[in-house]
Amino acid sequence: MKNVLIIGCGLLGSSLVRRISKKKIAKKIFIYEKSKLNISKIKKLKLPGKIVNSLEDAVINSDLIIFCTPMSEYKNLIIKINKFISSNTIITDIGSSKNESSKIIKKFLKKGIHWIQSHPITGSEVSGPEYGKENMFKDKWCILIKEKKTNLKNLKFLNSFWKKVGSKTVIMNVEKHDKIFSITSHLPHLVAYNLVKSAQDFEKKQKYDLIKYSAGGLRDFSRIAASNEIMWRDIFFDNKINVSKAIDMFIKNLNSFKKDINSKNSMSILKKLIQTKKVRSRIIKLKQDTNKPDFGRN
Amino acid sequence: MKNVLIIGCGLLGSSLVRRISKKKIAKKIFIYEKSKLNISKIKKLKLPGKIVNSLEDAVINSDLIIFCTPMSEYKNLIIKINKFISSNTIITDIGSSKNESSKIIKKFLKKGIHWIQSHPITGSEVSGPEYGKENMFKDKWCILIKEKKTNLKNLKFLNSFWKKVGSKTVIMNVEKHDKIFSITSHLPHLVAYNLVKSAQDFEKKQKYDLIKYSAGGLRDFSRIAASNEIMWRDIFFDNKINVSKAIDMFIKNLNSFKKDINSKNSMSILKKLIQTKKVRSRIIKLKQDTNKPDFGRN
Repeated sequence: MKNVLIIGCGLLGSSLVRRISKKKIAKKIFIYEKSKLNISKIKKLKLPGKIVNSLEDAVINSDLIIFCTPMSEYKNLIIKINKFISSNTIITDIGSSKNESSKIIKKFLKKGIHWIQSHPITGSEVSGPEYGKENMFKDKWCILIKEKKTNLKNLKFLNSFWKKVGSKTVIMNVEKHDKIFSITSHLPHLVAYNLVKSAQDFEKKQKYDLIKYSAGGLRDFSRIAASNEIMWRDIFFDNKINVSKAIDMFIKNLNSFKKDINSKNSMSILKKLIQTKKVRSRIIKLKQDTNKPDFGRN
Repeated sequence: MKNVLIIGCGLLGSSLVRRISKKKIAKKIFIYEKSKLNISKIKKLKLPGKIVNSLEDAVINSDLIIFCTPMSEYKNLIIKINKFISSNTIITDIGSSKNESSKIIKKFLKKGIHWIQSHPITGSEVSGPEYGKENMFKDKWCILIKEKKTNLKNLKFLNSFWKKVGSKTVIMNVEKHDKIFSITSHLPHLVAYNLVKSAQDFEKKQKYDLIKYSAGGLRDFSRIAASNEIMWRDIFFDNKINVSKAIDMFIKNLNSFKKDINSKNSMSILKKLIQTKKVRSRIIKLKQDTNKPDFGRN
């Protein structure tokens, strides 16, 4: 590959820049970033990419374009790049949900242009290029979206790109992807936001100083609930049908727990608590998390 | 203090044994443990306490007795120690909820005996004496329960004990304690169990391999949902009125999020997501969690 264009250079965009440069995956890295604050950070960090003010040259001269912006910016960016893009350039993105974003791409992208969606399963609660790191994608899953019309040669190229970046890849369609991540990612984030919101409401109402005692469990949720709000609004909206179904299932199960608690049904609640315990060891066996107690925090 | 008796030598009991011995807080440490597996572990670990098979001698010869068992065992143990206990010995416990346990103590403990409840805000998802550690309580809050009849001299003694153990102490009544921890600890645990349960249900129904992709958020919940099931059943049952109210508030807020998502109400959802973000920095400022992104895991 000759050149790559990273559009949006925050946490993940800047991590890609670092990794692509380190592993010499592309000759030149162009960076397009609209936030002035991020641009000044990128300069200060001396990230190994060329910041471009206009998209034209970078789009024309890149083999691969990676959208690393919030999904709500795709449409405007697509309209901009349509003027310069040719079918020699492959586009991908790293959005966490694919339902609506895939429709926007189909609707607005110039005909004949290849966009294959990606979703690397990585990230953090912090945002901005200063938190990016070269090994952000290492040994992490990256989902590649295959649709009926996906060009297999391009898919192979993109697959090989993510492997060079350090990811393990797997291919899915939009429907399966969005169902799986509504449960493993979108619902957990919503639930964390909601728990912290509930704690704040309670604190206001009762005038108790709750946060002081957050080490009992709340602090874990607060980390997830500190994630980027624009990114997560976009994800919840993009995948709203699956997220909505996930909420309903979650509430149904929570009401069942409530019934067990109110009736002190020991058998029923123990069955649930023992069952859920098994997931942790599966996760650790699959190397999806550290095996140290308490995440090795203390 | 001359001697201390630890009843139940799992994660927290064994941590107390380690710390009391290290800091020479007591002359002798008696350990009463009913699990044969734990006893063999304690012997193998060479924990600095004397394992006793019967409670009589240890109860008679101790200045302080600390219950470190699940709360559902208090009643039977109280009935046993009533035979030997005198008003010279102070009793405490480390249970995470106080409503029903305080009633059981009042109902079954021999009159004239002093039991002041404690709740050190610490722990882990793992159980057993092999995971205990000397600094388990260091710089952690320990709540001391003061009721109308609490003997102030004894409260002072217990306060000084927990400080020697390394904790920061604060005094509350049962009602305030149970309300606060229904939100900062009991609800987060229930929600984590419920999220993992929902993921398991979904996995079964859809026949998707979800756990593989748990790094998107689910893995954090799986840690909490791996906590000891007996301990948590006891807590949910002990504090069922507050937990039940907390569930209702949580569901109400979750339905409000669902409404925002289904109607794509950007203003309303962003307001919530921005608001919740603030809690993380408060928690870090209060040193209730590590300030490293992603708990410093990767």
